[in-house]
Amino acid sequence: FNIVVLPGDGIGPEVAAAGVSALKAIGEVYGHTFNFEEKLIGGIAIDERNDPYPADTDAACQAADAVLLGAVGGPKWDLQPKRPEQGLLAVRKSMGLFANLRPMDVPASQAFRSPLKEEIVSGADMLIVRELTGGLYFGKQTRTEDRAVDECVYTVEEIERVARVAFEAARKRRNKVTSVDKANVIETSRLWRETVIKLHKAEYADVELEHALVDSMAMHLVTRPKAFDVIVTENMFGDILSDLASVLPGSIGLLGSASLGSGKGLYEPIHGSAPDIAGKDLANPIGTLKSVAMMLRFSLNLSAEADALDAAIEAVIKAGQLTRDLGGTLAGSEVTKAIVAQIHA
Amino acid sequence: FNIVVLPGDGIGPEVAAAGVSALKAIGEVYGHTFNFEEKLIGGIAIDERNDPYPADTDAACQAADAVLLGAVGGPKWDLQPKRPEQGLLAVRKSMGLFANLRPMDVPASQAFRSPLKEEIVSGADMLIVRELTGGLYFGKQTRTEDRAVDECVYTVEEIERVARVAFEAARKRRNKVTSVDKANVIETSRLWRETVIKLHKAEYADVELEHALVDSMAMHLVTRPKAFDVIVTENMFGDILSDLASVLPGSIGLLGSASLGSGKGLYEPIHGSAPDIAGKDLANPIGTLKSVAMMLRFSLNLSAEADALDAAIEAVIKAGQLTRDLGGTLAGSEVTKAIVAQIHA
Ligand SMILES: CC(C)[C@H](C(=O)O)[C@@H](O)C(=O)O
Ligand SMILES: CC(C)[C@H](C(=O)O)[C@@H](O)C(=O)O
Repeated sequence: FNIVVLPGDGIGPEVAAAGVSALKAIGEVYGHTFNFEEKLIGGIAIDERNDPYPADTDAACQAADAVLLGAVGGPKWDLQPKRPEQGLLAVRKSMGLFANLRPMDVPASQAFRSPLKEEIVSGADMLIVRELTGGLYFGKQTRTEDRAVDECVYTVEEIERVARVAFEAARKRRNKVTSVDKANVIETSRLWRETVIKLHKAEYADVELEHALVDSMAMHLVTRPKAFDVIVTENMFGDILSDLASVLPGSIGLLGSASLGSGKGLYEPIHGSAPDIAGKDLANPIGTLKSVAMMLRFSLNLSAEADALDAAIEAVIKAGQLTRDLGGTLAGSEVTKAIVAQIHA
Repeated sequence: FNIVVLPGDGIGPEVAAAGVSALKAIGEVYGHTFNFEEKLIGGIAIDERNDPYPADTDAACQAADAVLLGAVGGPKWDLQPKRPEQGLLAVRKSMGLFANLRPMDVPASQAFRSPLKEEIVSGADMLIVRELTGGLYFGKQTRTEDRAVDECVYTVEEIERVARVAFEAARKRRNKVTSVDKANVIETSRLWRETVIKLHKAEYADVELEHALVDSMAMHLVTRPKAFDVIVTENMFGDILSDLASVLPGSIGLLGSASLGSGKGLYEPIHGSAPDIAGKDLANPIGTLKSVAMMLRFSLNLSAEADALDAAIEAVIKAGQLTRDLGGTLAGSEVTKAIVAQIHA
């Protein structure tokens, strides 16, 4: 398997290295060979190549079986015209990664960490499926001195393909999809709702479907997070709601993500570059390792291996071998070592 | 003072009646005369006039000193082309109500009701200022069979006038403004941020200003709500964030809102039409009475009267004279009577 690694900025390189270690361990135990190719993206790519997404990075991503991303961005690049985030948007668009999958769960044993009261959040277990290559993110932008315009565009095809990902995922989970829009105000949301309803009727009538307005949904995520299984929504709403959901477990260091296109996948922890702790071996590797488990499952079709990695992560959490963000005392690399040891055990 | 009352749908008429009672009591005690004119809006206006915002309603609102709105909407009108919400959007646009003010606070004594852990939320006290007549809500919308487009437009003038409201409000509070945008992705947000920065430098350098991305802000509202004083943002982000913030006190029945233009104001509770409990005298009138207090303060320049109403509400809450949503046993009209008695006391 050819894996492209995009370490990126801040703590990106540390956590990406953890991901590589875990894949190597999986390879040794299960007899697979992973070839790793490292490429530039984000701030470091701006520094070294004056381009947040250089052509050779793109070529490598296009040819890879899967891509592992650390994180991009940092205050260092905040005031310049070329920005690290452009690298992220470019890789999504170029690889056609139209569905961003963000699982979030709060096991009863971890609910004490949540900012929510335990009885509200304990046992919550959801998957947010965010459309990732459409909407305001990639619409036409115009600007004069005193006026700016962003276009939000969606087609039936774009909506169908991401809704399909949500319905398929629901069938493997608790069989319920909540589709989020603002159909009482905007046209793209009306098309969104119509299209989801039609697809549901035609192909997924066995899945329970409900609709929620984005403003209500923001409330529901805080007041009754256990009510949801799979949530599907457009790009900007998904950006907001998936970040909102990500704080419910009490540590964003535990969550991974998968961005999927037709056959292609990019995997990254959700926590970002955290420049304040970069280079100190404090970063929690678990979000990246959860992302690697998704890579094994979705891009490499190695579900036994994915289960083994998830189990190794759980065992180490249960044993209290934790980084400081979770109240532990271990360095990030020590947590990775513990998980690698579990894989070998 | 000429007050137009738009009872609207669901529990709208009950809570609007509570507002009228409170204003009458204030009038008796402080020697003011309020003239009330009732007009149609929303679903009931569709039923009776086939128009969610009839011309005579508009004329009355234009001529009024202030407008009191109950709520609009309900499942009854969900499947028809004319929708109650169109009435709400129309009155905002027609009256030029460009700034929506949503105060939210969680006094220590009430923190036990919050879905958040008490230590996180106790003492939170913020004002969200939402731009209300621009952005995706009022941009050009186009639709073909398989494609929809919404335009999001902002001008410097639109941004400046709402930012001004936020800075002025901050000066009377804790002197801090958090401006929320998605400047790393969309053009209108870049114009938003530039404009807020310029206005701050030119006229409000004494106010502390920070910027947050909308996705991070959704997280912060849950993880550190006490960190914010005044929050200002564009229409759609404001819709989402103000609803998110509204659940932090544990009951949306306690919150009011003001929508202000140049000189004009519309006041409404934030809870919506709650058709399930309509007509049962269960609705909590406090959100409406808080809105009436804002009306006294912002549109009628009666701040002593506003303080008196706020104090009467506080006293009744403290005395435990509560509706069921707050764990009490009183009918909505009994809570209103208790507050009216406090005003007279
Ligand atoms: C960095 C930014 C462009 C990006 C987004 O908004 O998509 C990030 O917030 C994310 O969710 O991955
Ligand atoms: C009903 C709807 C159009 C409205 C909005 O989105 O503005 C509501 O959610 C609100 O916040 O007042």
